[in-house]
Amino acid sequence: MAKVGVMFVGLTGATASTVVGGSLKMASRCAPVQFGTTSRPAFASLGLVGPEEMSFGGWDFKKLSVGEAVRRHGILPPEVWEGVEDQLDIPPAAGVRTELDIPAESEDENYVCPTSFGSAVETVLEEIRAFRIGRQVSQVIVFYLGSPHKRGRRPLSSYTIGEIEALSEEDFLREVPSGLIYAIGAVRAGAHFIDFTPSETLECEAIDSLAEENHVQVAGRDGSTGQTMLKVTIAEMLRIRNLRLKSWYSTNILGNHDGYVLGLEGHDEIKLRDKSDVLGAVLGYHDFEHLVKIDFFQARGDRKECWDVVDCEGWLGQPVSLRLNWIGGDSLLAAPMILDLIRLIEYGGRKRFVGLQPQLGLFFKRPLATRSSRNLHRSRPESASAA
Amino acid sequence: MAKVGVMFVGLTGATASTVVGGSLKMASRCAPVQFGTTSRPAFASLGLVGPEEMSFGGWDFKKLSVGEAVRRHGILPPEVWEGVEDQLDIPPAAGVRTELDIPAESEDENYVCPTSFGSAVETVLEEIRAFRIGRQVSQVIVFYLGSPHKRGRRPLSSYTIGEIEALSEEDFLREVPSGLIYAIGAVRAGAHFIDFTPSETLECEAIDSLAEENHVQVAGRDGSTGQTMLKVTIAEMLRIRNLRLKSWYSTNILGNHDGYVLGLEGHDEIKLRDKSDVLGAVLGYHDFEHLVKIDFFQARGDRKECWDVVDCEGWLGQPVSLRLNWIGGDSLLAAPMILDLIRLIEYGGRKRFVGLQPQLGLFFKRPLATRSSRNLHRSRPESASAA
Amino acid sequence: MAKVGVMFVGLTGATASTVVGGSLKMASRCAPVQFGTTSRPAFASLGLVGPEEMSFGGWDFKKLSVGEAVRRHGILPPEVWEGVEDQLDIPPAAGVRTELDIPAESEDENYVCPTSFGSAVETVLEEIRAFRIGRQVSQVIVFYLGSPHKRGRRPLSSYTIGEIEALSEEDFLREVPSGLIYAIGAVRAGAHFIDFTPSETLECEAIDSLAEENHVQVAGRDGSTGQTMLKVTIAEMLRIRNLRLKSWYSTNILGNHDGYVLGLEGHDEIKLRDKSDVLGAVLGYHDFEHLVKIDFFQARGDRKECWDVVDCEGWLGQPVSLRLNWIGGDSLLAAPMILDLIRLIEYGGRKRFVGLQPQLGLFFKRPLATRSSRNLHRSRPESASAA
Amino acid sequence: MAKVGVMFVGLTGATASTVVGGSLKMASRCAPVQFGTTSRPAFASLGLVGPEEMSFGGWDFKKLSVGEAVRRHGILPPEVWEGVEDQLDIPPAAGVRTELDIPAESEDENYVCPTSFGSAVETVLEEIRAFRIGRQVSQVIVFYLGSPHKRGRRPLSSYTIGEIEALSEEDFLREVPSGLIYAIGAVRAGAHFIDFTPSETLECEAIDSLAEENHVQVAGRDGSTGQTMLKVTIAEMLRIRNLRLKSWYSTNILGNHDGYVLGLEGHDEIKLRDKSDVLGAVLGYHDFEHLVKIDFFQARGDRKECWDVVDCEGWLGQPVSLRLNWIGGDSLLAAPMILDLIRLIEYGGRKRFVGLQPQLGLFFKRPLATRSSRNLHRSRPESASAA
Repeated sequence: MAKVGVMFVGLTGATASTVVGGSLKMASRCAPVQFGTTSRPAFASLGLVGPEEMSFGGWDFKKLSVGEAVRRHGILPPEVWEGVEDQLDIPPAAGVRTELDIPAESEDENYVCPTSFGSAVETVLEEIRAFRIGRQVSQVIVFYLGSPHKRGRRPLSSYTIGEIEALSEEDFLREVPSGLIYAIGAVRAGAHFIDFTPSETLECEAIDSLAEENHVQVAGRDGSTGQTMLKVTIAEMLRIRNLRLKSWYSTNILGNHDGYVLGLEGHDEIKLRDKSDVLGAVLGYHDFEHLVKIDFFQARGDRKECWDVVDCEGWLGQPVSLRLNWIGGDSLLAAPMILDLIRLIEYGGRKRFVGLQPQLGLFFKRPLATRSSRNLHRSRPESASAA
Repeated sequence: MAKVGVMFVGLTGATASTVVGGSLKMASRCAPVQFGTTSRPAFASLGLVGPEEMSFGGWDFKKLSVGEAVRRHGILPPEVWEGVEDQLDIPPAAGVRTELDIPAESEDENYVCPTSFGSAVETVLEEIRAFRIGRQVSQVIVFYLGSPHKRGRRPLSSYTIGEIEALSEEDFLREVPSGLIYAIGAVRAGAHFIDFTPSETLECEAIDSLAEENHVQVAGRDGSTGQTMLKVTIAEMLRIRNLRLKSWYSTNILGNHDGYVLGLEGHDEIKLRDKSDVLGAVLGYHDFEHLVKIDFFQARGDRKECWDVVDCEGWLGQPVSLRLNWIGGDSLLAAPMILDLIRLIEYGGRKRFVGLQPQLGLFFKRPLATRSSRNLHRSRPESASAA
Repeated sequence: MAKVGVMFVGLTGATASTVVGGSLKMASRCAPVQFGTTSRPAFASLGLVGPEEMSFGGWDFKKLSVGEAVRRHGILPPEVWEGVEDQLDIPPAAGVRTELDIPAESEDENYVCPTSFGSAVETVLEEIRAFRIGRQVSQVIVFYLGSPHKRGRRPLSSYTIGEIEALSEEDFLREVPSGLIYAIGAVRAGAHFIDFTPSETLECEAIDSLAEENHVQVAGRDGSTGQTMLKVTIAEMLRIRNLRLKSWYSTNILGNHDGYVLGLEGHDEIKLRDKSDVLGAVLGYHDFEHLVKIDFFQARGDRKECWDVVDCEGWLGQPVSLRLNWIGGDSLLAAPMILDLIRLIEYGGRKRFVGLQPQLGLFFKRPLATRSSRNLHRSRPESASAA
Repeated sequence: MAKVGVMFVGLTGATASTVVGGSLKMASRCAPVQFGTTSRPAFASLGLVGPEEMSFGGWDFKKLSVGEAVRRHGILPPEVWEGVEDQLDIPPAAGVRTELDIPAESEDENYVCPTSFGSAVETVLEEIRAFRIGRQVSQVIVFYLGSPHKRGRRPLSSYTIGEIEALSEEDFLREVPSGLIYAIGAVRAGAHFIDFTPSETLECEAIDSLAEENHVQVAGRDGSTGQTMLKVTIAEMLRIRNLRLKSWYSTNILGNHDGYVLGLEGHDEIKLRDKSDVLGAVLGYHDFEHLVKIDFFQARGDRKECWDVVDCEGWLGQPVSLRLNWIGGDSLLAAPMILDLIRLIEYGGRKRFVGLQPQLGLFFKRPLATRSSRNLHRSRPESASAA
């Protein structure tokens, strides 16, 4: 049976390399097979793919193999990757970079700076096609795990694809996040696209209809791995019990590359907004104070720690307060969710789901809801060739 | 329009006096009307009763009026009870006591020690009838808020009502918790019965059918006001995200009378079991360590503080841990839930719900589910006289 | 007996108004007399001044009376200031402002922007002299409680007084924090000077010798009221037990004006450096990660909350960790320390202590140690006229 | 040069085996040499002994070698004990047990139940003498690390040694903790005695004079390894800052054998009293609520976690509160302190210190102060033979 192909943007980063390392180990039958939500009995009858039915590849600015990346990150203990080193010898393709990406780091020697949107999309599209043929996979999923980017001068949502294609080289590099190149490239190549990061990419609504036309699925954005997941859970409890939120302060310390990038000027803007917006959506009101901070704290490495202090008003104005302290490995929390998404998207592919997939919102900090009624679950014609 | 009558067992305790004081204030239109869950928009169309449609009374071992109790507990600030002192001048009827209740305290001068189950039930039944007539209420709800009792030698569930009625005076006093007297008395008098405490009372299954026969509702047990509510919420999140619980330690400090009684030998047994059982039910597995402690700590008064430390295993055995610190007024958290239950039971009475009401399980630590399929929502004949 | 005069820079701020309000209440004998450290028995024999021997005044940018300020801040409950409203009717003198101070706020209508250092000092000096004569006080203490300022282009420590006096109007306003004007004015007027804020003022070493010449005392800087006090205490324990610090993360949330100003660009620089430097000084090594954050969180008002997470390495590299959560009213913690300092400085004045007072370092985040051996405790000649 | 001999009561327990395993590794020069407090520069000039100058032995109810115990406890990682397995092959002598000790466990097959106090002491004394001669050590230190025992019917302090010796076999076994047998045996054999546990042993004051007569040192009791150390540190800060303690709640969870024994009825009494008494001693007043709980929580193993909540009253009755969460390996925190004590007692032996050593109080939860003025630091005559 043909495998599902998974191409990560950021293949040698902490999260992607953890997913690949852990999955190959599970596929080798030397570790128990585990996912996240999709491990629950409710999903047992869907026939979701296992780790041995996945084939991994992708892009990165660095030239490391995935195996070398796994070793360097030190997130997976040696007993996980020992025995699958050979299969981890996956080299990344050269990444695409615009000026909204973080400045090149010393080891970044594997990237191209495109001169136009169209040519950049074309390159990505060709790489995906080559991957599909080379690996003989039935479907391809492009998973965006690139570092949080800066915003351009105009909101991405204000552009049409046509306007973006018409931008001069200079404007294109200053206005378009690289994520959009991968998104359009993927969709045009007939690959599904998932944005697991706080990126503006999916604010470009044209992607939805393009995805429908190309019979592929799109979902995002920003994986809800730790503090936000907890926050939504608690907020729901407050709502049900009529405990009115007055203020919520959240701080996060983490020391991985994601923490480093979020510490750079401008690169935490989208993420903080996504993290902040989440409470009002659950509670149904907005007259509370909410502050979210992310501090880069190297000593912690990938092990993120969060502290939240929540003040509510209960019956007759009584104070009720809650303090939360969460500790978990950032990449290790993300990995099973990414596997869940791969499995559910692959399933959706078989069931001919197309366009934006709001039912996957559970996985995201800022779930994208249906933007118009027509684009949810619209089946593609049976006669359509497999994407 | 006829009011709903509410009779509290433990009328001058912290919780009941807080409910009565706050409700009368809200009824006087000098404070905004607030409930708990039933304040949510979803309940708006049901026509649930407001505070001005409630009439309060009940029993207590102490001879205080509710107003004096409110002043002594110091939970409601003076601005709440000032202006409604007159209406708070409600004297409690004498409480019924068996040997499973806590020993009499110095101020306990308002109780009877019955000589048989039958005579005790009869007394309670007459008091409820007199209350219904005296207050001209449409329905009566008996709310059990007595102190946690000790267990007898045999589980209460192993007795039939007939066996209990046949017990000698000595055995009756040693085996039967006073809650059962109120429950049977209430049901026979056509009053609904709610157990908001960790009591064995509702383990006596005969109550269910008796309630059906008498066209009244029964619900319990042990209000899920703070730590347990939070625990269920978090456990549900762990289950969904496939984070496997390894150990959960919970400690509670509180300094109100409830905390004092729970500190007495034997009186915390049922509560701790109820609190402990809750996790396995949500998670669907039981191979974790779970320890719940309640410590009487006078300095805290009614303001309960909880601390929980939760250790889980995530993907590939990764550790994930969570620490929770919850602070809230015990009685002030319970009060809106009690008002919710009054409103929903009154609504159920109008809609002719009878027997055990499992759909109210949300409010309880150990929700009683349907014990047989026949007794849920079975309507009483239209011709039945109002209970 | 003559009182001691206390002039606050920032008279209507949260801290000064709290000190004045509480002290006048204690002086009226309607509240128990309490200080901080100097309440301990060890200080009983020193004959330190009581609240009835203090006379308060000072400067502020706002035109409020102290009484009005106390009411607005809402830190002292009404029962404290009721009954002493008359005595709280103290109007502030116009404050001196340079460009390093925070921008004028809407209510700031009580300040002067001086044209030269010399003329500004002269104005302050005259106000202190007038206060001493008007109140007939034996000694005057000027307490700097102004908002944290920005740094100028050159470190203040690199200037001599002569150079400062020679600055053009423009350069003076851009380079000199207003604290220095008060410090020099106070010392020249024969008044003691205490800097309780994170200000550069006392880095100007010329103040020390000037204080000696004028027979007055100088101390600072930045009152160690909460988190830093705790931090020093814990660090000392780690040092004694040979638990090697690897990382310490501290976050602070507070919602008073101090929190607001620290949230302005550049105004938290000195404070964060002072807070950060404190650990190495105690531990004797610096190879650990230390991050201190202060977040303005309006909901908290004056009630500051801190959270610290401390990771150490013990014997054979074992991990030991500590989490601290501190909650206390910022101004209410500062007030007794300020009273302690008033009492100890007054005592020092009687004992003829002059110059920098390093023995008061206990009160400060960044205690100023003796800068040269000659200036500590050097008595002034007996014949010198009372300062 | 002759080594110092160290005999542990409880040789195969978590703490003693950790000390021996770690010390032998350090002695082998394959791990950096580390102690606790005595690693500080201030101690550098005293010529304290290193790990290679210590020789270990002792008693235990179990028949394991130290090496096997180290492996089973799993506290020291394999890289510590690998390479020194041979030296860890130390078999324990049979332990002495009375009825105040915890009931024998399944693996306890290495103990004697003595028939009289005198004969039991004689056995211990002979074992110490044999150890001294066999190992050719200059001094012997007996370190009591036995499990917390129950109290007898009369306080141990009410007995004279003569009365104890005159007890019938039955009464002796019911009244005398085994620690006293080791203490008297050690002192009579010319060995120093340290009680690192919450035992009544050192309440028998006769030990002091006996120690003086035999020219040996005695110190105790109950090593202040974690929560209590922190508690004393914080309490000292509260005292200095005049923050008046109102209530302090402490809970501890631990899952090692010590935790198990403390969970047995009666075995936590002395420890809890020692832990509770500590605050009043530092603060100088006792009108606060203080509750200390120790809960056996297997999941934690040797890694103890503590949570404290501290409420104080500051200036004008303001609330100040502090929450502390401490996590550290119990045995790994104790080990360097035990090494410190070995080094300081050995030094005291060379300097001819005799009797109770109150200056070592820093190391203990309930430091024993001089019980009469004569017995502190009284040098033994120079001509006395080496103990």
